[in-house]
Amino acid sequence: MNTIKLLIILPLIGCLTIISNRLPAQEKDSTIRYTRVSNGYLMVLRQGDEIIPQLEHFALAEQIPSANFTGMGFVNVTFGFFDSAKKKFNPKHFKDVELASMHGSIAWQDDKPSIHLHGVVAGKDFVAYGGHTLDGTVGTGSLEIMIITHHKKLERVFEKDLGANVLHLKR
Amino acid sequence: MNTIKLLIILPLIGCLTIISNRLPAQEKDSTIRYTRVSNGYLMVLRQGDEIIPQLEHFALAEQIPSANFTGMGFVNVTFGFFDSAKKKFNPKHFKDVELASMHGSIAWQDDKPSIHLHGVVAGKDFVAYGGHTLDGTVGTGSLEIMIITHHKKLERVFEKDLGANVLHLKR
Amino acid sequence: MNTIKLLIILPLIGCLTIISNRLPAQEKDSTIRYTRVSNGYLMVLRQGDEIIPQLEHFALAEQIPSANFTGMGFVNVTFGFFDSAKKKFNPKHFKDVELASMHGSIAWQDDKPSIHLHGVVAGKDFVAYGGHTLDGTVGTGSLEIMIITHHKKLERVFEKDLGANVLHLKR
Repeated sequence: MNTIKLLIILPLIGCLTIISNRLPAQEKDSTIRYTRVSNGYLMVLRQGDEIIPQLEHFALAEQIPSANFTGMGFVNVTFGFFDSAKKKFNPKHFKDVELASMHGSIAWQDDKPSIHLHGVVAGKDFVAYGGHTLDGTVGTGSLEIMIITHHKKLERVFEKDLGANVLHLKR
Repeated sequence: MNTIKLLIILPLIGCLTIISNRLPAQEKDSTIRYTRVSNGYLMVLRQGDEIIPQLEHFALAEQIPSANFTGMGFVNVTFGFFDSAKKKFNPKHFKDVELASMHGSIAWQDDKPSIHLHGVVAGKDFVAYGGHTLDGTVGTGSLEIMIITHHKKLERVFEKDLGANVLHLKR
Repeated sequence: MNTIKLLIILPLIGCLTIISNRLPAQEKDSTIRYTRVSNGYLMVLRQGDEIIPQLEHFALAEQIPSANFTGMGFVNVTFGFFDSAKKKFNPKHFKDVELASMHGSIAWQDDKPSIHLHGVVAGKDFVAYGGHTLDGTVGTGSLEIMIITHHKKLERVFEKDLGANVLHLKR
């Protein structure tokens, strides 16, 4: 009986060891950047972390089919407003600002994670600025992100008429 | 045995055909405006879509007891600030702006869906404006909305003292 | 058989009576401030309610291990921007404003609930202000908060290097 138990348990331990060794390097760091919660994941980024690459890394590592997220923190960000005549974003950088509000989504485009991110920031005078976020890093503090994951794999598709990427839904 | 199976399966097919023919026209369009996800629905509205009517249509079609939602996109919106002396909203329109943040809830009032909607917008100078949203349409782009649905049917009730509709909770 | 049933049911009724009498006073008021929903709780605060103490009371009463929340309403709030040289928050108060966006999280610190709260507000000119929220009360209206609860108990830890409390994640 005990021999049978060992025959079941030993290969199991072997498998777990192999899986654990295959985790990305970051996952074995002392700093945990995200953790599983009932409705998805809670992510906490820290000073110097690049926001969009961290979300892309997460989407790839956990093979997230699609997700929506909200957040808040202290950041440096670049917003971009689309100039439809010139077909490009006019960027503006905001340094050392509170991220009062963050909304975003994770989907896929050309087999790569596609992060769509909007934010509202404010500096020491509390005057708020907002827009489509081109990139950003965490400032002297942290960034808390609540990620609600979905089971359906969703794609973002560039629509020429709009000059914009649009999230395509499936039934 | 096979006869019994047919007796079960045939009426089922009939029922499904009837249900499918009763879906609102929009649901049979090529454009899917929302899809079921683990925690509720993901909605993507497109250029020209009216935001509040689309949410009302959704609440009716899916018989949503109550819900909360968050979102972001590119819109034209009218905010209103309540003048408690004149008992009316002073409106202001914002055209071709990023919706940097959107928060809202779905409840019922007089047997009709009641949408409560707040937003923060910004134009090409990124200066943010915000408030209670009276109405809005999607601009040259899209609007992504994550809807978290609840099982409890909730009512919004006009409270004379406040001059405002208030969401009434039930145990 | 019936005697056995009574032996099981009677003590059960006794227990429920004891539990019900131990509910905090507020819970037996006519005003319900929060209700259980599929993914957590929906909270509706009313004129005069203090936002952070209400969230702390909720976290204690329901023994919430950790949570994230979003909201909107009509409020009076004090934002604070951290002056890293003086190691203190410079506060600014905003009265009778729409809370266009609210993001926050619930964790624990020194066995007490720790609420982290960011907001974006706007007055009658719709110009938006935002930041880290030091305190706030509900104005002439209400405040709707969607709380997504998690099973993992999370602690906030003061990090001297950053001069800030940081949410510490666990696997």
